[in-house]
Amino acid sequence: MPSTDRQAVILAVKRAEASGLQVVCVAVLGHKADLGFMAVGPDLWQLRRFQTDLQTAGLVVVDSYVSLTEVSEYAAGVPDDMKQARLQPSLPPEGMSAFCFYPMSKRRGERDKNNWYSLSFEARKELMFGHGSVGRHFKGRILQLITASTGIDDWEWGVTLFAVHPDDLKDCVYTMRFDEASSRFAEFGPFLTGIVASVETVLSEVVHDA
Amino acid sequence: MPSTDRQAVILAVKRAEASGLQVVCVAVLGHKADLGFMAVGPDLWQLRRFQTDLQTAGLVVVDSYVSLTEVSEYAAGVPDDMKQARLQPSLPPEGMSAFCFYPMSKRRGERDKNNWYSLSFEARKELMFGHGSVGRHFKGRILQLITASTGIDDWEWGVTLFAVHPDDLKDCVYTMRFDEASSRFAEFGPFLTGIVASVETVLSEVVHDA
Amino acid sequence: MPSTDRQAVILAVKRAEASGLQVVCVAVLGHKADLGFMAVGPDLWQLRRFQTDLQTAGLVVVDSYVSLTEVSEYAAGVPDDMKQARLQPSLPPEGMSAFCFYPMSKRRGERDKNNWYSLSFEARKELMFGHGSVGRHFKGRILQLITASTGIDDWEWGVTLFAVHPDDLKDCVYTMRFDEASSRFAEFGPFLTGIVASVETVLSEVVHDA
Amino acid sequence: MPSTDRQAVILAVKRAEASGLQVVCVAVLGHKADLGFMAVGPDLWQLRRFQTDLQTAGLVVVDSYVSLTEVSEYAAGVPDDMKQARLQPSLPPEGMSAFCFYPMSKRRGERDKNNWYSLSFEARKELMFGHGSVGRHFKGRILQLITASTGIDDWEWGVTLFAVHPDDLKDCVYTMRFDEASSRFAEFGPFLTGIVASVETVLSEVVHDA
Amino acid sequence: MPSTDRQAVILAVKRAEASGLQVVCVAVLGHKADLGFMAVGPDLWQLRRFQTDLQTAGLVVVDSYVSLTEVSEYAAGVPDDMKQARLQPSLPPEGMSAFCFYPMSKRRGERDKNNWYSLSFEARKELMFGHGSVGRHFKGRILQLITASTGIDDWEWGVTLFAVHPDDLKDCVYTMRFDEASSRFAEFGPFLTGIVASVETVLSEVVHDA
Repeated sequence: MPSTDRQAVILAVKRAEASGLQVVCVAVLGHKADLGFMAVGPDLWQLRRFQTDLQTAGLVVVDSYVSLTEVSEYAAGVPDDMKQARLQPSLPPEGMSAFCFYPMSKRRGERDKNNWYSLSFEARKELMFGHGSVGRHFKGRILQLITASTGIDDWEWGVTLFAVHPDDLKDCVYTMRFDEASSRFAEFGPFLTGIVASVETVLSEVVHDA
Repeated sequence: MPSTDRQAVILAVKRAEASGLQVVCVAVLGHKADLGFMAVGPDLWQLRRFQTDLQTAGLVVVDSYVSLTEVSEYAAGVPDDMKQARLQPSLPPEGMSAFCFYPMSKRRGERDKNNWYSLSFEARKELMFGHGSVGRHFKGRILQLITASTGIDDWEWGVTLFAVHPDDLKDCVYTMRFDEASSRFAEFGPFLTGIVASVETVLSEVVHDA
Repeated sequence: MPSTDRQAVILAVKRAEASGLQVVCVAVLGHKADLGFMAVGPDLWQLRRFQTDLQTAGLVVVDSYVSLTEVSEYAAGVPDDMKQARLQPSLPPEGMSAFCFYPMSKRRGERDKNNWYSLSFEARKELMFGHGSVGRHFKGRILQLITASTGIDDWEWGVTLFAVHPDDLKDCVYTMRFDEASSRFAEFGPFLTGIVASVETVLSEVVHDA
Repeated sequence: MPSTDRQAVILAVKRAEASGLQVVCVAVLGHKADLGFMAVGPDLWQLRRFQTDLQTAGLVVVDSYVSLTEVSEYAAGVPDDMKQARLQPSLPPEGMSAFCFYPMSKRRGERDKNNWYSLSFEARKELMFGHGSVGRHFKGRILQLITASTGIDDWEWGVTLFAVHPDDLKDCVYTMRFDEASSRFAEFGPFLTGIVASVETVLSEVVHDA
Repeated sequence: MPSTDRQAVILAVKRAEASGLQVVCVAVLGHKADLGFMAVGPDLWQLRRFQTDLQTAGLVVVDSYVSLTEVSEYAAGVPDDMKQARLQPSLPPEGMSAFCFYPMSKRRGERDKNNWYSLSFEARKELMFGHGSVGRHFKGRILQLITASTGIDDWEWGVTLFAVHPDDLKDCVYTMRFDEASSRFAEFGPFLTGIVASVETVLSEVVHDA
């Protein structure tokens, strides 16, 4: 970080946006990172170029998560505009600067009833519907984006939450943990928390010279 | 650490306190860190600025835990002053310089009776009440602060203990481990132990030049 | 990476190919690596020389997986050309630039029915046949290479997938996860994802100077 | 280590001993460390000062374990001199230069009969008595010190063994592993092995200049 | 590695051998290490001196395993020359340059029948005899050395295999995995694979200047 070239970071973001990527910039809290980027776009080479540009600007990439937007098999019947919002989300949402990201997988426990992948499609669909109902209680306070990473990264999905207030992040994830789709079947990876802002603001708050 | 600017660390603490944060400073024992800070306040940007100031002063942030004060759902009926003590604690408590911190989660075991999140609210409330009774035996020897981190950091809660004597930390946590809320349902992360003192004292004891 | 000698990397690949190794070059996405090489050949010293040449060129080897091509015991009856394709694959396949690699093992759960190595050969063969059927749905979209590493590296097999489109990687692995050979018996290591290209292209996209 | 100031290390040990700490110095085998110190005393600040002195002398603290001497609840009835030997041990024992340290916890398995903390005090006391009997077979060959770390460090106890011969360490721990207190209830952390000697001898054997 | 003094490494090996240690030198494949040494001898100080000499020569010790040769309790009745081969093996065997090492422990599962340390001596002896029978199928292709590390290092045994061909390593470990002593009771640590050669050959193949 001492050798970070702030102008080059800003240019990397501008170049990525010009090439068609959406870029969300986050001031990360704690030791896991100083700043983070969420980049969304249709082409892997564009994403890799953005990464290389950030590295050239002096940033060290200490963590990452690679995943794909998708309309899940349980959402085949939702209206087209909702499908579109999942495949090509508009980020970041306005007025929601509290941010968290975590990866998760569905448990394959020793008991068949604890093994998500041994359930029928109908049983899974019902559980996911109940799960979604809990989530809908937080509409307006939370925007959630689920991206798929089975075969792509170490967990099966990535969950990105944007919230009005940090307490909303906790309230939402805590409440959903009692839902059976989570209580019996969810396994969670590390959680990353931060504040969404413009790249200029984030850089001015987190770059240090030591 | 060799390049730590002690005056800049002290100024970072003063600046944080002036902006409304409470800051507890700890001389940490062992390889996990040399010193630690517990900062409490209403605004994430303030916390991030404090972190950036410490980094600018030459400290390397090797670990962290992000969490939120809360009145838990089981404590909805406690008197207002007790709620206030949890939401806006006054730290550090006087005369309690032995310190430990550890994160924890509630177990979601394969058997339903070992899955905290499959229990009814009443069953959980009863277990938490019994758990609290054990803790109250240590009143005067231990001050405990529980902060919430579901959706925020890697475990579900952070536990901070201040004690008169290091043995109190061990006696309290050991005794509670036999309580069913712990014995059947608790999973513990890493434990950090240290000594609370003024930032000046801590710096003079732990900063080294090698 | 700042000190990488691009010409020396290219020469290392050419020298390896001249000595009889097949080399696939990958631009890796995310923090796990910048670039990756998959090298296939009959002689361990050749592989070690290739590694030494890459290190001499300034690359730091941050991860690796050592495994052996094989005709598994379940494939004893397949035609000779299919055996040959497994023992001496021709890599990379044309038109498939999306790439992932992950290691896996067969679970030895506490219950006998969850312990792969307690099953009879017939039961395992039947499960593997069903597993292969799912995989054959992705013919043309995915080329899969399974290499063996029991006794050689930390997991029992390495799985390399080449795909036309990144979504194919996810669709294939996600679909197979519901097959009993996976749902009940598979344990997965870390997943690495990238883009196959010539060494010159990969170097020009990922090498940075910071 | 190249920059270690041997005289400063020796002075750090002397200063610690002068302040009332007992210090055992160990030449560690393998990559986990080059040398190790076991320091015992009544005051956390003294221990922290010893750590800071060693760091100032150029040592990098790569691992540590913080724990407290205790008379366990199962030993309430032992003679006073045995209690004293546990609370204020005299270290190192004469003629026992083979050394190992490992932390451990009692298992809280899914089955109640595998959950140490669900057992009655009487059941635990009986198991610990049987465990102690096995240990007493090694009297004269092994000196064992158990220190408590529930709430203090990542495991519940630290076990330090001093032996006449390295084989004694293995024979003792291996034999005790068949005892039910271990076979059903013990979970073990990493093991560190080395040779006890004077700080001067250890430094002359392990400090290197590369 | 760039600063490795090859002559000093060779001298360290010669000095160790002169002092009575047997030293096997291995060119390691992959990121876990560049080269490895297996040293066998009766005195811990000699082993520590060899380690210090290698470090002084510029090698960084990134991994290690400390264990003791033994005649296991199940082999009490084998002929004296077989006991001798286990206590004082002659290494490396001729014509076997493929090498792997892995540590392992016996499982203590939640079910008594999956807990090795709850079995009777007779049951364990029978399982180990069956296990040995499988191993004897590989005579001439594999030489195996089991060393004991309960109480000494993080797993209970170290397994070193020398083979004529790398496929032998895989065939042997894979075949034994179906034996009940492995399928029900074995837990495996990381696997290291390489090629045995003289120290001069290994150095000339793996040392690089980057």
